[in-house]
This record gives sequence, C-alpha cells and structure tokens, in this order.
Amino acid sequence: MISKNKARYIISLQKKKVRDEEQLFVIEGDKLVKEFLIARIPVKNLIAKPEFLSTLSPEMTRLVNETEEVTYEELKQISTLKTPHNALAVIPVNRPDLDIENLFGELTVALDFVQDPGNLGTIIRAAAWFGIRNIVCSTDCVDLYNPKVIQSSMGAFLHVNVFYYDLRKLLTAACENKIPVFGTLLEGQSIYNHKLDNKGIILLGNESKGISEELVPYVTEKIKIPGFSKTKPGIDSLNVSMAASIVFSEFLRKSSPIPE
Amino acid sequence: MISKNKARYIISLQKKKVRDEEQLFVIEGDKLVKEFLIARIPVKNLIAKPEFLSTLSPEMTRLVNETEEVTYEELKQISTLKTPHNALAVIPVNRPDLDIENLFGELTVALDFVQDPGNLGTIIRAAAWFGIRNIVCSTDCVDLYNPKVIQSSMGAFLHVNVFYYDLRKLLTAACENKIPVFGTLLEGQSIYNHKLDNKGIILLGNESKGISEELVPYVTEKIKIPGFSKTKPGIDSLNVSMAASIVFSEFLRKSSPIPE
Repeated sequence: MISKNKARYIISLQKKKVRDEEQLFVIEGDKLVKEFLIARIPVKNLIAKPEFLSTLSPEMTRLVNETEEVTYEELKQISTLKTPHNALAVIPVNRPDLDIENLFGELTVALDFVQDPGNLGTIIRAAAWFGIRNIVCSTDCVDLYNPKVIQSSMGAFLHVNVFYYDLRKLLTAACENKIPVFGTLLEGQSIYNHKLDNKGIILLGNESKGISEELVPYVTEKIKIPGFSKTKPGIDSLNVSMAASIVFSEFLRKSSPIPE
Repeated sequence: MISKNKARYIISLQKKKVRDEEQLFVIEGDKLVKEFLIARIPVKNLIAKPEFLSTLSPEMTRLVNETEEVTYEELKQISTLKTPHNALAVIPVNRPDLDIENLFGELTVALDFVQDPGNLGTIIRAAAWFGIRNIVCSTDCVDLYNPKVIQSSMGAFLHVNVFYYDLRKLLTAACENKIPVFGTLLEGQSIYNHKLDNKGIILLGNESKGISEELVPYVTEKIKIPGFSKTKPGIDSLNVSMAASIVFSEFLRKSSPIPE
C-alpha cells in the first residue's frame, strides 16, 4: 500500500525541476528495473507488484533502500505509461565526471540542442549498439532523466555515459588536440565517400535547425547522408535519430573490424 | 466557426473503424496540408486559421470541397496534437492498386506485424529518402492512416506507396519469380559482408518478436546488423525503424550509384 504522500512525490519526479532539486529519477518496467538491480545500482525506492518482487534474489535487492508492494491500480496512479508494467524504481542520480581528454581516444557523439526525448533515447540506444561509450549533450538538450528518454533508450541507458557540457568548450579542446570534428551539414560530402576515423567527435544538430551557426566553424569534416530518391522524397532531411543510426553504422563499418 | 457535429465527426476519424467505414483520414500541420494541396490531392474538408488560408493560391484550393475558417481554440478541440498548427484537412482514402510483379524490378520493403505508428512513419520516411517506392505491410500492421503514422512520416507519406497484403502470398510470388527475400534474423550474416542487390524484398519483423515463424522459410538471404560493442550493450536488438534506416543505407550504398 503506497501512501498518498509518496505517490505525489513520485509523480512530482516527472518534472525536471524536481528531479534536479532531489537528484532522483524514475525508471519503469520489469526488464529495466531488473537490469538496474543486476548492475547493482543503488535504488532509493523499489515499488512493484508481488509477482515481480518474488523473482528477485537477496543479492539483487542488497542496494535497495526501501521496497513497497503495490497493486496494479496503485502502480497505474504513479506511472507515466498507459499500461504500466510490474515495477518502478526511484534512483539517485550519479553522474560520471567528464574528463574531456578521455573522449578523444575514441569516437564520441556530441548532440547540439536535441529536443525530442524519443530521439535522445534512440541515439543512446544506437550508440550502445555500435560500441560508442560517450555522448556529450549541449546544456540545452532534453534531460536525460526525462521518462521518455529512459523508456526509449531501454537498457542502453546503463551502458553509455551521457554528459551535459558547453559544446564550444568541448570542440575548442578537440581542435587544440587535433581531433577531427565530423558534422552533418547540407553542404557536406557524401558519408559513403568520405574517410571516417575510429576517433573524433560526431556532431549532430537539432531536429529542425541542424547544427547551430556558432558551432559550424568547429566542424573540420563536413559530411552528409545523400538522398537516393530520383524524385522529390517529400522530406528535407532524415530525422536526427535515423541519421545517427546510419552515421554510426558507416563509421564503425569503415573504421573497425566487422563482427561476425 | 465549426459546428459541434463536424467537430465530433473529425474527432471520430481518430478511430480506425470510423476511418475504414468513411474511407477518410485526417492530416495536420501547415507544411503537410500545403504539400497535399500542392500535389493536387482531393480534400474533403480544409479547416484552418485565416493566416494559413490567406497563403493559398486559387490553383491550390481547386480540389478542396469545403473550406472552414477556425480559431486556434477550435482547432485545438479537433486536433490530436498538444499544440496544433494552423491547418487540418480531411482526405478521401485513395489506395493505389497492388500489382505484385511491378514490385519485383526494384527494392521493395515488406513489414511483418509492425505495431508502433512512430516506427511505420519513420520507415516510410527512410524509404522515401533512399528512393524505395513501395512498402507492403502485413494486414496486421498498424494502420497507415493512424495520425501518428502520418505525423512521423512527414511529407514522405505522399511519395511512398504503402499496401496491405498477405505477406505469404507476396513472398510465394517472389519465390516463384526467383526474387531474393532479404530477412533480418539473429542467425543472419553481417549486412556489411553480404552481397546486396538493387532488387528484391527487404523483410523486417515485429518490434519485439522479429519476423514471424511462418515467414522465415521464405527468407532466401539471412542478414543482420552486427553489434560492435565489446561489452554488453544493454539491448538485445536495434529498434525496427533504426534497423530499417541502416539496412536501406547499406542496400543503396552497395547497389546504386552514390549521389554527390
């Protein structure tokens, strides 16, 4: 049985302001909650139906501060999902420290003003698939702990570091360290013909505006995904998360040994 | 001023059952509505704010049956969007006839039980970008005229034919015509190493179940997008629309002249 106060407090974490103040966020779904428990991430509140709780080993719940058994109806009250799963957890924020030079030995993604939570989640997922470990978001990107970001990134959330940082500073440092900055721009060269490295920054821009004007000068390698349609395709550009998937695929294919 | 009856009737078109009965669907947004008008698609009702209507030429509104000027508040009542744009239109369904053999001279996408409207819309968008003109959906896929499909496909909707058809029949015909069927399967060969043609069927499966068991025997070329992560990526697979984007990119890159 969940108290009214606690229900209100969990719902309040849907707001970024409250998450920032409390330094807490919420995850939902049997699979995701289980992955956090298996990865031994400290959990402040675990709120779940008995059938979920009964599947957990003592080892998995060692870092759970408080557990509460609830009914489906109670879960529905505090969930952001239309049809909630069996479990929800409140997690303390634990952001890794950003050590810029660490990023420069491999491929790192920089996102400029990505607004849509589904896009950020999908990009995290694609990065995880292609073994990209770090994403640096401009400080005006959508919040990583937005429930829709977490939902669409699935478990990838746990395997990719996402930082928020001033991209001008990041790109200045890249420039000083002679690290290439690959940016998707309309006037770029076809990604299929361009030499792609296994280190550098892949800079992707906002959903409708692309890379912001003030960041364009930092781009050392202008690339694009050319359209193959012989007629008007009816769209000006690919969605940023589709573009990210294709760009990551091209980079890894060209610069890494291809797995079986 | 829109009557209560008409508002109710437009809202009712959010339901597939009503769309099927009435053979009508709704599009929203200045850009999309304008593209339909420019493409001379017959429009049953054009419902828009005066500032939108004043930008239309007589040529563009020739095939509009009925035009209604509304306020933002009225538009908000009938819209599926939280923050509606300036225009909405009701369009008579006009499905192209499916001529199977026509599909076999080029790359065609077949979607098996794709359920999420955002995924179908994104796949239509990716197909348009890569010049793929035809998508055949299994009859249990999400409805093309679902507002979220239309919203996420953007203008690509007008440039790709989407059919609903029994995929067993389609794939049997492909087999009889010696047309390759490329299917994404866990045991497939890396798409980066596999020979990809400029004709054939690209078969993509359901979001969580993949290609259904009964269709697997029709797959003549088993392919997959290998993960490049050296550690567990936290996900079992890519989302179907990300996978589609990458697969289309690989097919076109390998089988077509690369545009500038």
